[in-house]
Amino acid sequence: MIKVGIVGGTGYTGVELLRLLAQHPQAQLTTITSRKEAGMPVADMFPNLRGRVDLKFEDPATAPLKQCDVVFFATPNGIAMTQTRELLAAGVKVIDLAADFRITDVSTWEKWYGMTHACPELVAEAVYGLPELNREKIKSARLIANPGCYPTAVQLGFMPLIEAGVVDLNHLIADAKSGVSGAGRKAEVHALLAEAGDNFKAYGVAGHRHLPEISQGLSRAAGQSVGLTFVPHLTPMIRGIHATLYARLNKEVDLQALFEKRYRGEAFVDVLAPGTHPETRSVRAANICRIAVHRPQGGDTVVVLSVIDNLVKGASGQAVQNMNILFGLSETLGLDQVPILP
Amino acid sequence: MIKVGIVGGTGYTGVELLRLLAQHPQAQLTTITSRKEAGMPVADMFPNLRGRVDLKFEDPATAPLKQCDVVFFATPNGIAMTQTRELLAAGVKVIDLAADFRITDVSTWEKWYGMTHACPELVAEAVYGLPELNREKIKSARLIANPGCYPTAVQLGFMPLIEAGVVDLNHLIADAKSGVSGAGRKAEVHALLAEAGDNFKAYGVAGHRHLPEISQGLSRAAGQSVGLTFVPHLTPMIRGIHATLYARLNKEVDLQALFEKRYRGEAFVDVLAPGTHPETRSVRAANICRIAVHRPQGGDTVVVLSVIDNLVKGASGQAVQNMNILFGLSETLGLDQVPILP
Amino acid sequence: MIKVGIVGGTGYTGVELLRLLAQHPQAQLTTITSRKEAGMPVADMFPNLRGRVDLKFEDPATAPLKQCDVVFFATPNGIAMTQTRELLAAGVKVIDLAADFRITDVSTWEKWYGMTHACPELVAEAVYGLPELNREKIKSARLIANPGCYPTAVQLGFMPLIEAGVVDLNHLIADAKSGVSGAGRKAEVHALLAEAGDNFKAYGVAGHRHLPEISQGLSRAAGQSVGLTFVPHLTPMIRGIHATLYARLNKEVDLQALFEKRYRGEAFVDVLAPGTHPETRSVRAANICRIAVHRPQGGDTVVVLSVIDNLVKGASGQAVQNMNILFGLSETLGLDQVPILP
Amino acid sequence: MIKVGIVGGTGYTGVELLRLLAQHPQAQLTTITSRKEAGMPVADMFPNLRGRVDLKFEDPATAPLKQCDVVFFATPNGIAMTQTRELLAAGVKVIDLAADFRITDVSTWEKWYGMTHACPELVAEAVYGLPELNREKIKSARLIANPGCYPTAVQLGFMPLIEAGVVDLNHLIADAKSGVSGAGRKAEVHALLAEAGDNFKAYGVAGHRHLPEISQGLSRAAGQSVGLTFVPHLTPMIRGIHATLYARLNKEVDLQALFEKRYRGEAFVDVLAPGTHPETRSVRAANICRIAVHRPQGGDTVVVLSVIDNLVKGASGQAVQNMNILFGLSETLGLDQVPILP
Repeated sequence: MIKVGIVGGTGYTGVELLRLLAQHPQAQLTTITSRKEAGMPVADMFPNLRGRVDLKFEDPATAPLKQCDVVFFATPNGIAMTQTRELLAAGVKVIDLAADFRITDVSTWEKWYGMTHACPELVAEAVYGLPELNREKIKSARLIANPGCYPTAVQLGFMPLIEAGVVDLNHLIADAKSGVSGAGRKAEVHALLAEAGDNFKAYGVAGHRHLPEISQGLSRAAGQSVGLTFVPHLTPMIRGIHATLYARLNKEVDLQALFEKRYRGEAFVDVLAPGTHPETRSVRAANICRIAVHRPQGGDTVVVLSVIDNLVKGASGQAVQNMNILFGLSETLGLDQVPILP
Repeated sequence: MIKVGIVGGTGYTGVELLRLLAQHPQAQLTTITSRKEAGMPVADMFPNLRGRVDLKFEDPATAPLKQCDVVFFATPNGIAMTQTRELLAAGVKVIDLAADFRITDVSTWEKWYGMTHACPELVAEAVYGLPELNREKIKSARLIANPGCYPTAVQLGFMPLIEAGVVDLNHLIADAKSGVSGAGRKAEVHALLAEAGDNFKAYGVAGHRHLPEISQGLSRAAGQSVGLTFVPHLTPMIRGIHATLYARLNKEVDLQALFEKRYRGEAFVDVLAPGTHPETRSVRAANICRIAVHRPQGGDTVVVLSVIDNLVKGASGQAVQNMNILFGLSETLGLDQVPILP
Repeated sequence: MIKVGIVGGTGYTGVELLRLLAQHPQAQLTTITSRKEAGMPVADMFPNLRGRVDLKFEDPATAPLKQCDVVFFATPNGIAMTQTRELLAAGVKVIDLAADFRITDVSTWEKWYGMTHACPELVAEAVYGLPELNREKIKSARLIANPGCYPTAVQLGFMPLIEAGVVDLNHLIADAKSGVSGAGRKAEVHALLAEAGDNFKAYGVAGHRHLPEISQGLSRAAGQSVGLTFVPHLTPMIRGIHATLYARLNKEVDLQALFEKRYRGEAFVDVLAPGTHPETRSVRAANICRIAVHRPQGGDTVVVLSVIDNLVKGASGQAVQNMNILFGLSETLGLDQVPILP
Repeated sequence: MIKVGIVGGTGYTGVELLRLLAQHPQAQLTTITSRKEAGMPVADMFPNLRGRVDLKFEDPATAPLKQCDVVFFATPNGIAMTQTRELLAAGVKVIDLAADFRITDVSTWEKWYGMTHACPELVAEAVYGLPELNREKIKSARLIANPGCYPTAVQLGFMPLIEAGVVDLNHLIADAKSGVSGAGRKAEVHALLAEAGDNFKAYGVAGHRHLPEISQGLSRAAGQSVGLTFVPHLTPMIRGIHATLYARLNKEVDLQALFEKRYRGEAFVDVLAPGTHPETRSVRAANICRIAVHRPQGGDTVVVLSVIDNLVKGASGQAVQNMNILFGLSETLGLDQVPILP
């Protein structure tokens, strides 16, 4: 059994980690921390866990994190970077669900996240935890930068096109729509049901923190800098991301075959039949990305539709997938939940 | 492995049975029928099942139902009664998720359901499949009448009070609220998102088909006829039932202790702490009923709050629970999903 | 033109007052205050008001409230009571949408609201602003206590039965369901879309602040103290209250005739045909209460269904109705919006 | 008073016409037809109209349509074209909310709509009723083709760029999101709350009927054929369209000034401040299009955000706006409702 610690489990990625790990046959939930809620049973905050998770939130100062085999950070940005060095030194593997280790260029990170990085030397070591891209590196990593939700959906959707070199790299467009759980479990007026319900809006058009993360990933795959316009939107649902991706073809290619070949053998990426439209509910509560590729009217614009559950393949499920790889387990272990529909 | 057949799997109880049985370690999905959709892969209708259920809908005329160990009817009312006799004769156990065998008094059934019963002789044999009430009888049954969704939530909530004889039996009130999946996967205007969304209404106040089912169950427990007012409401959510129950106390009793004692040892009934309020999302997608009991201002009115997922403990999950009992398996086998929150 | 001031217009009752008053032919929006947002154009906070309301939030210390003919308090509880004395002295009429003047018994108020009342002498003078009950008194009032949302729906539903003396007064039950805007525009986790969406729960069963307000109103109408069980619920919609009321008949009466007679001539109370079920969306964004009365199975329990828009007839619309009465205008002036459906 | 007839008022554009016209000071609702519902009071189908619209649905065969000054067709596609000739001959003006007269090229229309056109000679005469484009022509028209919902949002958003000749016309992208009322009041499984709720998906990527309508409009404005990729999506809300538009700049231009100038003086188009994001709820139930224009990271891709209420500016409100123009009334008459928020 893998001894698991979770730092900061009071948000949605925290409760989702708990849901998945409580059912994982090789994980032993050992400690979960929250400075603010120390002493409170986890199931008092998250009533779905009643009878399934008996832990109480522990003070991070005294929690036995160093006795764990792996520690997940389900914290706001800027926390993991202050504690990772010590944990790694104690032989603990670290999976950060926040953004502290996602951007290799530290000055870019500092610009977008508005903080000074506390351990820039570890940024280089960290492996970007998108298994469909980086599986081999993940196997031997100590420190995983778990991808953001939008970046997961967008990169998985664009990757086959970019790796194959068939699209104009200067004018990629990602129009992405997210459910409100992506904003986290924070008391903010704009995320109230009375504000976000029955409403749709774009946000962050001028620049969203996931833009440099996506650009970095696509640029690496392309072997050159790419030009990306990324527009995120808030949609009145709880879970789910739908990325609609646009690129201009500059070579003839069998798009369907390209995507099927790229993801053959991937347990968590499902390429749909031509002409279909994936729905976010088809992946609700499960660690799956479903993708369809279109070429409307046979023109030179390719449209890729990519859906994930932002809390699973876009966060906690992918983190568990990374844990499985890190510890040499079957990659699908504990991640075989059937999506919930309706 | 138990060979399982499903008759009529194109509705919500059907897809939920498939979700649960696809993950059940002792169930082998053998056949699923739909006259209208024969030949269509199940996963084309229910995209959450892609990669998990490979069956196609089969024509009921040729489907190998008699080779099954158990057949679930996830059909409209009035179908199971026409096919059960033959299946039982072939040694197949039958679990009907519709109402054909729920009401012991055939004339009452015929009045409320507006049909002539096709096999009244089997009504007497059928066991009402509420395990928390009828576990022993279920063990040796051939034919299970799986309870309705409202009746499950209401009976589990009232039962401790009635068995203990502490409330006025003539004036029970059940004010129940259901998500729209309870109306089934039928093309009806009133259930459109544009009609049922952002809206709340009562329906069937003059008389709902679940009234005689609940009355029968409560009357049996009471040993006398009870007087029940049952008002169902439609609430703009997908899954979930919340029953708010009112009864007048006519004896002093420790309500909390009464409920805890009644459900001690029950894996699927969770009595919450005094003063709390169960939420429907705390049981979303799981086979659990959570109950809290209140006595506002210390008066003589007891208020019971009872929540279930109408598609799980209110339908397909309870059906699998009954299957487990019928076949001598652990009652919780394949039913240990953690509820999805948020 | 009536010069109107609004104190504290940053919540939902504030924006709804602005929407209604901006279209009111006799109201002149003169000032709106917010300590925190002073200087911000109102339409920057509430984009629906762009081009329709040009005011900026003003500091309450300098806002010309005393030059107004009427001031609405759309503030949290406990604010109006500190400023009303001075405004009345300046000849300004006051309509408080909060609870400061609703409960005649000051000690009861202080117990439920947890504060010391700042001007108990005005409590006696204040008129409870439910026009269908108190129209005559409102005409000559200086200070209106605008009713709460639940109290409006519940009192209008129970009133005909109580005034006619046909029900058991000791065991009234009000099972009420509210959309989330009733909780106000406050940053609170439980009201997030990701928490309150696709979810249903009761709250405050042990005691909600609207209980003494409703009890007071019903007791006055009955001429004796009544026994009421009040259970509010949160339903995943934005606007709307549905009250389901239960009482035991102790006299034979033509219920339909009783309700129709009681509300004949009332512009804002609509008694539906027998056997029908009012929907909250049928009153969305309009100042109407729709009521249907049922007697299921001809038993002795009467069921009343009463719906309002909590922000209109349950708050701001009723406040404007009160303003119309106070100033001798047609009661329906500016309140003839057709409800929005779908 | 203008005598108004409505053909086919049982859908959402019908009820919205009724809501608007019931409050219009110069409109007299004279007749409304429905073959299927003849004899039913309109307010029985649409409870929001109780007390406000006293009409019953009339059989179209006998309804006094020819006595009207104007007839609105709120029918499925293919109905108006069979009745318009006769109405025009009787001197009645016709406003078709369906698509029968929107596409000038009849063969294109017949291909996309799968029918033979019943009166191709009138197609040429019909004026496309987008007042911000065609105001002068509308004034003297007999027959108005009221634009589709997506086409309204997309054309208003793209028009300033195209008229100014500052973008690459071959690679326009319109990523549009609609609430479910856009699908109409039809009993279809995919639009059930249990299907479309908490879900997001694209549809019609291979080709949607609004594509030729939008292309025609943009091509006319450009004076040349444009290349457009149009991807519609279904979002879980009732009302609202959000169009996110992408184009590549090929000239330097002050985008904000361009948009402000283009729509100066337009009562129903609101250009927001730079850097902002319009929300669909900011136009809910009102005849407004709000637009913001962005140029992310100062690159060569311009992003336009355009929102409307699909049932108002995208259908019935725009139809009333056209009626006002046709009859020489103030264009805003009866269309000054403040949007509903929250």
